[in-house]
Amino acid sequence: MNKANRGWVLESYPVGTDFESALKLRDIAMPEPGPGQMLVRSLYLSLDPANRGWMMMPTYIPQVPLGATMWGFVLGRVERSNLPGFAAGDLVSGFGAWADYCLMGADMTNKLPDLGGLPLYAAQSLFGLSGGTAYVGVVDIAKAKAGEVLVVSGAAGSVGSLVGQIAKIQGCTVIGIAGSPEKCTWLTDELGFDHAIDYRSEDVAARLKALCPKGVDIYFDNVGGPLTNAIASCMALRGRIVLCGSMAKFANPGPELDLGPILLNRVTVQGFILIDHFDRLDAANAALADWAASGKLKHKADIVDGLENTVAAFRMLFTPGAPHMGKLLVRVDPAAL
Amino acid sequence: MNKANRGWVLESYPVGTDFESALKLRDIAMPEPGPGQMLVRSLYLSLDPANRGWMMMPTYIPQVPLGATMWGFVLGRVERSNLPGFAAGDLVSGFGAWADYCLMGADMTNKLPDLGGLPLYAAQSLFGLSGGTAYVGVVDIAKAKAGEVLVVSGAAGSVGSLVGQIAKIQGCTVIGIAGSPEKCTWLTDELGFDHAIDYRSEDVAARLKALCPKGVDIYFDNVGGPLTNAIASCMALRGRIVLCGSMAKFANPGPELDLGPILLNRVTVQGFILIDHFDRLDAANAALADWAASGKLKHKADIVDGLENTVAAFRMLFTPGAPHMGKLLVRVDPAAL
Repeated sequence: MNKANRGWVLESYPVGTDFESALKLRDIAMPEPGPGQMLVRSLYLSLDPANRGWMMMPTYIPQVPLGATMWGFVLGRVERSNLPGFAAGDLVSGFGAWADYCLMGADMTNKLPDLGGLPLYAAQSLFGLSGGTAYVGVVDIAKAKAGEVLVVSGAAGSVGSLVGQIAKIQGCTVIGIAGSPEKCTWLTDELGFDHAIDYRSEDVAARLKALCPKGVDIYFDNVGGPLTNAIASCMALRGRIVLCGSMAKFANPGPELDLGPILLNRVTVQGFILIDHFDRLDAANAALADWAASGKLKHKADIVDGLENTVAAFRMLFTPGAPHMGKLLVRVDPAAL
Repeated sequence: MNKANRGWVLESYPVGTDFESALKLRDIAMPEPGPGQMLVRSLYLSLDPANRGWMMMPTYIPQVPLGATMWGFVLGRVERSNLPGFAAGDLVSGFGAWADYCLMGADMTNKLPDLGGLPLYAAQSLFGLSGGTAYVGVVDIAKAKAGEVLVVSGAAGSVGSLVGQIAKIQGCTVIGIAGSPEKCTWLTDELGFDHAIDYRSEDVAARLKALCPKGVDIYFDNVGGPLTNAIASCMALRGRIVLCGSMAKFANPGPELDLGPILLNRVTVQGFILIDHFDRLDAANAALADWAASGKLKHKADIVDGLENTVAAFRMLFTPGAPHMGKLLVRVDPAAL
């Protein structure tokens, strides 16, 4: 195989959000799949806040080593497979790399579910990790019930936009927190959120106290940082906080949660990462497909064309007020779709 | 009835730990029980960190108003009763006041359980709120299991000393955090804790990492403040933090918990106050009585004589390194026992 391959190589650890200095697009060798691996042609790259964490420290996976082609979730087509159950031509979603071609193993790799006429990118904007996180987080972890008030931050993002809609389907009153008037309008007018709060121009705690004087039953936290404590001060008795993301922590390190109101209101704070719940993905995908087919659940992908634009797009995730909504994806090669 | 009555009147809200300026022992009127109330002769006052919170802000009860005789948990004997089910002469434990005589209603009032030959103060040092909090916290909230590592702060206190012993009975490895070498020695040599750490002279996080390299499964938090974050950084995957007390917060207001490790390790943080679990008190008292009878569970009361010494004793609770161990009680009138 003599095809060319390019990849984003992690040449230094990023300082702040200067990803351009740390990651360089290089011509790299075509990887050779070993036993239990496959070579995958990338179609879409999923850009996720978690990618930044992987560069900065050991998380639920080891820290990305310098010299590695940056790790990421990839939707692609199998070129060659040494992995039982997968064959050339299969469409797969899994843990790969920001490159034209990458290797995937069995861990966190799935064949695409039946997309039922939805566009290919729905495998990342509706199903898979974003939809799975939203579904399991709302249904299994928060156990959202009809009549409860659910607040979600990062509400215009890939997980948040689905969280709010799934909570509406469960019968909750839903309030989204986002970073621009355009995002807030999208949440209420397109996605059916009851209210939206622009955290960049409004006092979130004051608005929450006005909107839900009995308190917030569930806070689905996609961002961490100072917003978490502001919302935690508005919880109802025996409320639940689902910790799902912490992208705001990069700019606000250190302790952020005052435990006084947590104790007094007997609140539960639960760290949640989908990797503990992969056994629920089939149920999640089935429900998501039903809701999408009946028009109850909308999904949106914000698609950037070209592998060469990956890092500039990635930076948007950490730019307050950036215009992207829904799932941020890189279409690696339109000709390959 | 022409008996004299004295009570600690809250004349101003305390600044820091200057309780002496805020609370004054005064001759007060003998209260007259209304419908559903009884007049109780105080035998022992239970001194609890929660009393300070009640003075400073609304909690799960309203803030103590200025001019009130300070509220507190009291073990006493009924003098006159307008409360069905209670009669003069009954020994009761409940929500009363720091006074020779106080009123009690039905809320949070219990007749004493069968003390089985234990001294009267066991109703507060072993049974009741301290023992109930320890039992429900370890068994129902933390769900401590054999083989797990449980760390408890305020370990030489009324709740903490029982928490550690109950966790040992469940088969846990138990590490207590306390504020003097004497307290640490008591925990390991008398109560059977596996280890004790003096937070005033040792690096708690470093010791925990050495003692339990696989991490802390359960942190039973009786104090809040900076210690909470130090221990939270040592949690095992899917560990649990039971928030039960926050006395250290008075000296350390503001956010204390970094949610990064909570998310990454999928830790659960649970606010816990016994008032939600009074239906479990009978089961708690039965288990506590059995364990005490078989010698598996020790309880200790640190008894200060004289209503006039109440406030000086109360201050000990907030004095790091103060000598009291176990349950801090005021014996109001030895002649009345």
